Amino acid sequence: MGTLHDVFNARSVAVVGASASPDKTGHIILRNIIDGGYAGSVHPVNPKAETILGLKCYPTLTAIPGTLDLVVIVVPAKFVPGLIDEGGRKGVKAAVVISGGFGEIGNGDLENELKAAAARHGVRVIGPNCQGFNYTPNHLCATWPLVTCGGPIAVISQSGTVGAAMAMWAAQEEIGVSGVVALGNKSDVNELDLVEYFAGDPTTKCIALYIEGIRDGQGFMRMMRSVGGRKPVVILKPGRTEKGKKAVASHTHSIAGSDEVFQGVCRQLRITRASDITELYDFSKALGFLKRPGGPTMLVVTSSGGSGILATDTAEQCGIDVAALDDRTKEELKKVLPGNCVIGNPLDLTGDADAARYRTAVETAARTSGADFFFLIFGDPIPGAAEVVQSLRATISQEIVVCYLGGGETEAIEVRKMHRGGIPVFPTPERGVRAIGALLASHTLERS
Amino acid sequence: MGTLHDVFNARSVAVVGASASPDKTGHIILRNIIDGGYAGSVHPVNPKAETILGLKCYPTLTAIPGTLDLVVIVVPAKFVPGLIDEGGRKGVKAAVVISGGFGEIGNGDLENELKAAAARHGVRVIGPNCQGFNYTPNHLCATWPLVTCGGPIAVISQSGTVGAAMAMWAAQEEIGVSGVVALGNKSDVNELDLVEYFAGDPTTKCIALYIEGIRDGQGFMRMMRSVGGRKPVVILKPGRTEKGKKAVASHTHSIAGSDEVFQGVCRQLRITRASDITELYDFSKALGFLKRPGGPTMLVVTSSGGSGILATDTAEQCGIDVAALDDRTKEELKKVLPGNCVIGNPLDLTGDADAARYRTAVETAARTSGADFFFLIFGDPIPGAAEVVQSLRATISQEIVVCYLGGGETEAIEVRKMHRGGIPVFPTPERGVRAIGALLASHTLERS
Repeated sequence: MGTLHDVFNARSVAVVGASASPDKTGHIILRNIIDGGYAGSVHPVNPKAETILGLKCYPTLTAIPGTLDLVVIVVPAKFVPGLIDEGGRKGVKAAVVISGGFGEIGNGDLENELKAAAARHGVRVIGPNCQGFNYTPNHLCATWPLVTCGGPIAVISQSGTVGAAMAMWAAQEEIGVSGVVALGNKSDVNELDLVEYFAGDPTTKCIALYIEGIRDGQGFMRMMRSVGGRKPVVILKPGRTEKGKKAVASHTHSIAGSDEVFQGVCRQLRITRASDITELYDFSKALGFLKRPGGPTMLVVTSSGGSGILATDTAEQCGIDVAALDDRTKEELKKVLPGNCVIGNPLDLTGDADAARYRTAVETAARTSGADFFFLIFGDPIPGAAEVVQSLRATISQEIVVCYLGGGETEAIEVRKMHRGGIPVFPTPERGVRAIGALLASHTLERS
Repeated sequence: MGTLHDVFNARSVAVVGASASPDKTGHIILRNIIDGGYAGSVHPVNPKAETILGLKCYPTLTAIPGTLDLVVIVVPAKFVPGLIDEGGRKGVKAAVVISGGFGEIGNGDLENELKAAAARHGVRVIGPNCQGFNYTPNHLCATWPLVTCGGPIAVISQSGTVGAAMAMWAAQEEIGVSGVVALGNKSDVNELDLVEYFAGDPTTKCIALYIEGIRDGQGFMRMMRSVGGRKPVVILKPGRTEKGKKAVASHTHSIAGSDEVFQGVCRQLRITRASDITELYDFSKALGFLKRPGGPTMLVVTSSGGSGILATDTAEQCGIDVAALDDRTKEELKKVLPGNCVIGNPLDLTGDADAARYRTAVETAARTSGADFFFLIFGDPIPGAAEVVQSLRATISQEIVVCYLGGGETEAIEVRKMHRGGIPVFPTPERGVRAIGALLASHTLERS
């Protein structure tokens, strides 16, 4: 019997329906597996080709020499059950069925055949009708777009596009993903299996879930209770409105259910709920990289007065406390900061602040202010910001959350440095503060 | 007496406090004016240098030969009133005072001296204590970061950083700005003067305003009434919470005032209000590029079922009508689309959709469906999307709003093509739909 470990850590992969034409899915996936740096053996299967992308092509799965762990299937639906049988006989442990044309268009019988074949041989199946998966620890990108940047976020998605968008953003920002899995019709592997897998995956620090309906409510509760204590889970679940529910029903035949009930469950289990894709990304970034602060008191340190105000307004709406500075901290800050700084919370270092001024301000306030954490807004081209944040994180005990905006080329350089150094940076004060709100409300108390 | 026209269309500029060291503001601004492609004459002023950045340097403003329209001042505050006097005697029409150290740190007397000098000579002043301005029709970037990409959005901001961030995003996306102006202390030119200027500026199609307080409530109402009918205005105004109001008071000594009253004014005058910087950007992008649809009925056309659902949920919350398709349109669509498409609203063309399928679907539905506008979501790598959208815009009367996500390299290429072609693209379904909500609620009925 194959396991999810066999899916993600497969040492050999066949792509059935591999194609030589660059626009075809059977070409794109094969190319992404190769270009992604996969170290296992890769076998295109296509009876009409000798080689594809420089690899020897086989007419059938059976013809492939040696053992085979995983089969990626990109051929018309009617051939899929037979392929699962053939693979099963060969000892294949898992299959990813990209092909559509099953239950989602009313072909429930064909999907049942697929299930039966898989059950006969103990083959685990992802899909059918899905966008595949990517697992960066194994450099195995059996999906699109090609993303090779590894990181702490695992994405499980009932929408291929939502998963792809999350992976792309994480790659562009160089924070990376551990895995991205498209659920498709969930004929075998479902979101609970995957949550369990990533909860035990050492690379994954946070699980992002896009899900349209929950078939097994009790199982969901049980799983979230068990995983919630170990790893944070962020969920985006649409169907909050009547028309949204209808759209859910016609997309994946799921029942969105009562949004109030789901919201209650999230609150009870301290699952972090995102209200849109942007929040799914931001909250996962916060939970994947940051420690939960010991309390809600935030000191905002900024070079941009306006950004400090926007952060304050948002904080108030998220239950974060932008507490007034105590007199002693004010005195200490006055001693070390130039006269044009506005000593308060927000602490406005003003537009002529350099990175060293942030270091001075934060080190001073960390000693006396009682702030549970710092929100640093770099609102100008401030070279050296990354080095200062990196060194502050090593010297003070409070968590530091960073926002950078308006800094032109310098911003791009500094944000890249921070992301490569494992420090998440948010692009606006409001997105940063909302992410902190999610972090404070999250379940797990301690994270590395 | 100088006018704002003289500020923005200056044919000669002096930078007083120009510096040879690359980190100094007096260097950065001079370099940005040069690198921005300004065609007028540029004169660095610094008594200690012969040349800076290859330009002949003058010891004083008086020493500059010929006429001089605009002076950018980056020297300590105490010298500024004298410089305005000197410039005034030379016939300078306008000054941008970057230098801080006036009213904002309690030096009201010095700011009054500055005002008096400006009044004596009829010199218009932007600032002091501001981040300068950029006006792309004149290729004059007297601020930072350097942004040269021209476009329809004018940004007026009491925060230099908010203005800079907006300009940067617009440049990165290649949608561009007409102008960006930082208000600073508003000793002379204020937001109402600038709104009036950009309302008459032919390049500007939408005015984005970040403002912390309104000094002259009656004047504000009058101006917005007058401008609102001609050009849309989007406002981000913080101070929605008590602590936000306090932060406003210590940043710019403004009175944020009652948020309920301000909200009422916005509703009455149909000013578009943004709740955060992201919305300020998105709403300006929508209002700067798109026609207001004739009604609220939206047909969502997508390759991503999940994204269609997220769009639907958000639409319901924004008062946009994702109306069911009528039977005739369903029949017509069934005739022209493959069997795996889900015929409804959202209209799910599914993950194997190419650009041609979007064309077929939209052309067909445009004839019979009664939709006031189309929301096209490209949720996969779909080459040719830009060409299809471009040609649909020429052939159907309904407005088309575009979202693109999850498409990897193809997405980057297609989005760039659309932005260069004047078609705004939103990065998530929710951000796109919220921007449509703002468009529908906006004041002006007709825009080119």
